[in-house]
Amino acid sequence: MDFLRARGLRYKAIDEVDLGASSDEVYLRANVKAPRMAGALVKVFVWFLELPIFGRILIYFLKRQNLIHKLVSFAELQESPLYVPMHPYDDAVEKEVKCVKSNLSPPEQVKQAMDCLQSSQNMKHIPDLSFRHWTIADYSRAYLSGELTPRMVADRLINAVRESSSSELQMGFYINFDAEDILRQAVKSTIRYERGEPLSVLDGVPIAIKDEIDCLPYPTTGGTTWMHKVRPCKDDACCVKRLRLCGAILMGKTNMHELGAGTSGINPHYGSTRNPHDPQRVAGGSSSGSAAVVAAGLCPAALGVDGGGSVRMPAALCGVVGFKPSFGCVSHSGVLPLNWTVGMVGILAGTVEDALVVYAAICEASVSDQSTAKPPKLCFPLLKSPVLISDITLAKYGEWFNDCTEEIRVCCTQALAKLQKKYSWKIIEVTVPEIEVIRLAHYVTIGSECSTSIACLLDKINREELGWDARVALPVYGSFSSREYLNAQRIRNRQLQFHKRIFSQADVIVTPTTGVTAYEIKNDVLQTGELDYVNGAALVRFQIAGNFLGLPAVTVPVGYDKSGLPIGLQFIGKPWGDSMLIHIAYAMQEVCISEYKKPEVYYDILSG
Amino acid sequence: MDFLRARGLRYKAIDEVDLGASSDEVYLRANVKAPRMAGALVKVFVWFLELPIFGRILIYFLKRQNLIHKLVSFAELQESPLYVPMHPYDDAVEKEVKCVKSNLSPPEQVKQAMDCLQSSQNMKHIPDLSFRHWTIADYSRAYLSGELTPRMVADRLINAVRESSSSELQMGFYINFDAEDILRQAVKSTIRYERGEPLSVLDGVPIAIKDEIDCLPYPTTGGTTWMHKVRPCKDDACCVKRLRLCGAILMGKTNMHELGAGTSGINPHYGSTRNPHDPQRVAGGSSSGSAAVVAAGLCPAALGVDGGGSVRMPAALCGVVGFKPSFGCVSHSGVLPLNWTVGMVGILAGTVEDALVVYAAICEASVSDQSTAKPPKLCFPLLKSPVLISDITLAKYGEWFNDCTEEIRVCCTQALAKLQKKYSWKIIEVTVPEIEVIRLAHYVTIGSECSTSIACLLDKINREELGWDARVALPVYGSFSSREYLNAQRIRNRQLQFHKRIFSQADVIVTPTTGVTAYEIKNDVLQTGELDYVNGAALVRFQIAGNFLGLPAVTVPVGYDKSGLPIGLQFIGKPWGDSMLIHIAYAMQEVCISEYKKPEVYYDILSG
Repeated sequence: MDFLRARGLRYKAIDEVDLGASSDEVYLRANVKAPRMAGALVKVFVWFLELPIFGRILIYFLKRQNLIHKLVSFAELQESPLYVPMHPYDDAVEKEVKCVKSNLSPPEQVKQAMDCLQSSQNMKHIPDLSFRHWTIADYSRAYLSGELTPRMVADRLINAVRESSSSELQMGFYINFDAEDILRQAVKSTIRYERGEPLSVLDGVPIAIKDEIDCLPYPTTGGTTWMHKVRPCKDDACCVKRLRLCGAILMGKTNMHELGAGTSGINPHYGSTRNPHDPQRVAGGSSSGSAAVVAAGLCPAALGVDGGGSVRMPAALCGVVGFKPSFGCVSHSGVLPLNWTVGMVGILAGTVEDALVVYAAICEASVSDQSTAKPPKLCFPLLKSPVLISDITLAKYGEWFNDCTEEIRVCCTQALAKLQKKYSWKIIEVTVPEIEVIRLAHYVTIGSECSTSIACLLDKINREELGWDARVALPVYGSFSSREYLNAQRIRNRQLQFHKRIFSQADVIVTPTTGVTAYEIKNDVLQTGELDYVNGAALVRFQIAGNFLGLPAVTVPVGYDKSGLPIGLQFIGKPWGDSMLIHIAYAMQEVCISEYKKPEVYYDILSG
Repeated sequence: MDFLRARGLRYKAIDEVDLGASSDEVYLRANVKAPRMAGALVKVFVWFLELPIFGRILIYFLKRQNLIHKLVSFAELQESPLYVPMHPYDDAVEKEVKCVKSNLSPPEQVKQAMDCLQSSQNMKHIPDLSFRHWTIADYSRAYLSGELTPRMVADRLINAVRESSSSELQMGFYINFDAEDILRQAVKSTIRYERGEPLSVLDGVPIAIKDEIDCLPYPTTGGTTWMHKVRPCKDDACCVKRLRLCGAILMGKTNMHELGAGTSGINPHYGSTRNPHDPQRVAGGSSSGSAAVVAAGLCPAALGVDGGGSVRMPAALCGVVGFKPSFGCVSHSGVLPLNWTVGMVGILAGTVEDALVVYAAICEASVSDQSTAKPPKLCFPLLKSPVLISDITLAKYGEWFNDCTEEIRVCCTQALAKLQKKYSWKIIEVTVPEIEVIRLAHYVTIGSECSTSIACLLDKINREELGWDARVALPVYGSFSSREYLNAQRIRNRQLQFHKRIFSQADVIVTPTTGVTAYEIKNDVLQTGELDYVNGAALVRFQIAGNFLGLPAVTVPVGYDKSGLPIGLQFIGKPWGDSMLIHIAYAMQEVCISEYKKPEVYYDILSG
């Protein structure tokens, strides 16, 4: 098909790309050439796609129409491929951090993180707030004072989960939830408190786990009906093990987009996860359930997995904090291998402080499967109120604040102005070039890796066991050539260089987390799922650098649109700049917390 | 084409693979299903291959017949992909080495290496040897004593090169050779000696450069007729710059297999490089010219590039030393980007000592394009005679000594026995599993990377400008899917683990360098080149780990077959165990040097 070959873009040399505010780099908006499809239309489309020869031709034209050929497959690039998103680590000293020894146990690490939170100031329920999520420290205080026991909390939780999944609400929070197992854990924790021997501040605190992460006694479905049959869950994942060592109550496996292969959280097998702020709307995905249970007050924190914004997107849409640490800081062992170089365990939490505490429990300074990098020292930020670090520079790309809905633009711009005013931080305008290119190159990467990783599992099932949108995604994922994959990695190398230059001037890059807020769950999507790559692209495009370049990134709720739907602001940090990032997210939260609103579906577990 | 899909092999878990001598791992011999083709047959085959649809189907069956589908494409693997062959570096102290500061200039590094060579003992022409190559130290001594000048040597060289390329001999050593440029360099060097200010021991020493490495004033053809037109050479490659800083005379661009895409060194555009030990036979490839000029006495050392044994193979066939350092120890900047993760600049030299001196000139402790690894300390071995290190363990895989011609088996086994006897080193029997798998996975990798890397250059030429065997190689290189590429990287990860286990018991792995000695150049190959994947596989299969896992490896001449053709023994070292490897190669050379034979085509440059 050489005669049909689209001409590839010839990329400029990296040095010739101006990253300043007045750069002449063209800002390419996502121009997705794929109509929204649902219902019968999806089925017809799949039928075409699965035809032996016509299917291949169709994929060819889909890739061509959607610029994958031009921007990735046949592009002309000078860069060598970059495989593992590991930036060279220089021992740059972060400010206002406490460095932690590398041989500490999870409870000891949690203790260190707690010491960094000025508990007297920040852990109290400040009465003049209209709404604030209960924090891990709130749970701990209630248990230590004897006001509540983990057992009591477990009872309330079980009732709340049952209510949320009733035919009335159908919130679609969980794929698996074992009340007996939760009670068992709660009883043990209660005994520990009675003996005055809680394992850590996390003892008895409920934490939910995305169903992409192994957690006994549950199967790991990955949002499918078959994954657990061909890949049984035999042990806790590393991160789950660490939470257990801290005494956390692991309260079931949250709903997710099937195979993580979508951004809406609409799952045809386990129901669509509904947004606690408006149950008629999506929670975002793929870690939809984890974001929604935190937003709904069922637990102060949950684990998700972020391969392409999958933690930050639902966090932003549900109005909670979503934190994806630097690549390699959390072990991937026991997480479904849906990709190798972009996915990371991430944390969804009601507050930045809680994201820090859970991060302290699960992070490992020595995790680094592929790289030979000496891992950075483990550090936690000293969170004080007000944040004392004065000389922070935020990089902002103006076009991003225009490439979203007007309400998001206004809300994010105002939040940023408030932040700047309060702390006198510097904001510089930069250009982050080739944003659409990085989205497509990431798509080729995650698609190729996912397809390769699960190909042998897929051989063992009937394709009818897959949902319709997964049946569309997988043939496309499997269609990429090694040239397409390698060129995507060359684009990754380009972006690494671009980001290095930006980070030489700024501490973080700030973006709206998503281009749109939670959109409606239409009636026709519940059975077949939905192909909506336009909304998908609008949700995902600012978040890719975090995955593709292994950068730490966090989203913080900063306001609401006119329909009362949450809006998130994202900070992307320097490689291994996790502590600085948490600092800044905390400062952002402090500025906005007085305007946080209670979600429509909310369970006030501690007040009962 | 799902119904045609070959079933993939299900690989054992790594831990279940026994690497001991009595392992039940099946030794799979290369079973290449591709007849030797040359002349008109090659042309017909290319015609089929370039047909739009039939060509694709043909490639499909070629890959299937040759086990690529079974062993790579559709294999069932537990391992995640490994991209950069960088082993984690632990600061293991090598024995008997001199560590060098990282900020030294090339001449200073060379000085350090020379200090490690006990010059009084080893640099003299020992009279009881039947044949020994002139060394760098021999040149230096002749210049310093005033016995010879670089100018005189240049004159002799120019005459010798002219003779070797006369219609009588047609040795095919060089692609480009500029007598005037050489004289200019020689005059400058002569003046430096007159002033008593030579830059280093390399001053005035002729060194040839493979035509895959940029070296002014020459174009870089990569063995093609068009590469230099679409990619002009604008500067010296890093390694060439460093040699120039040491005063070396860069004496032209040596012949190579077109695009490095073959192992014979038969180049349809610039003639077949002929083996100085028997001009009717191949020199091996792809660095054919670099091996042949060293063997023929035209220079004590030359640079090659080793992406799949391309330095070690011709070195073994031509009876010289071939050294591929650890991945990342020599900058790849200015080398044709024919791949990203397997190729490395390597050194061809008459003696192990000279390989060390040139290595000292070109290696950079800080080179590490992709990895975040802190580079290891630069060390040079203290070469003494006899080698004083006593507790060396060599790992030997018995099957490899059977998977070669009987003469190679006997010769390599005897050499090893002599080595063991002289130094009382320990030899343990191990199993290196999946040797055929690693060859195919490497083929998929280098093919995919080469194809991606030069795709945009190929678009600019007529395919008629390519030689016939390149026209067969390139469509196959370009046929791999991302799944095939990624699975190849997973196999790489497996092999990394296997080699780690072997290196926990042994210092080096020892193998015959090639399975066959230099074979004949048939008359029908000079125009079309030759498709001979059977001999190709026999040449290459023991050398792949060096490239695929980034390990240092060296071949040393250890004898001759009955036709008087050289036989090489290969040592594969621990990651960054370059110094230990040179130590062992030196000991091997000491054992065998008394039986070295003068090649049929030989120019005694220093004696005149």
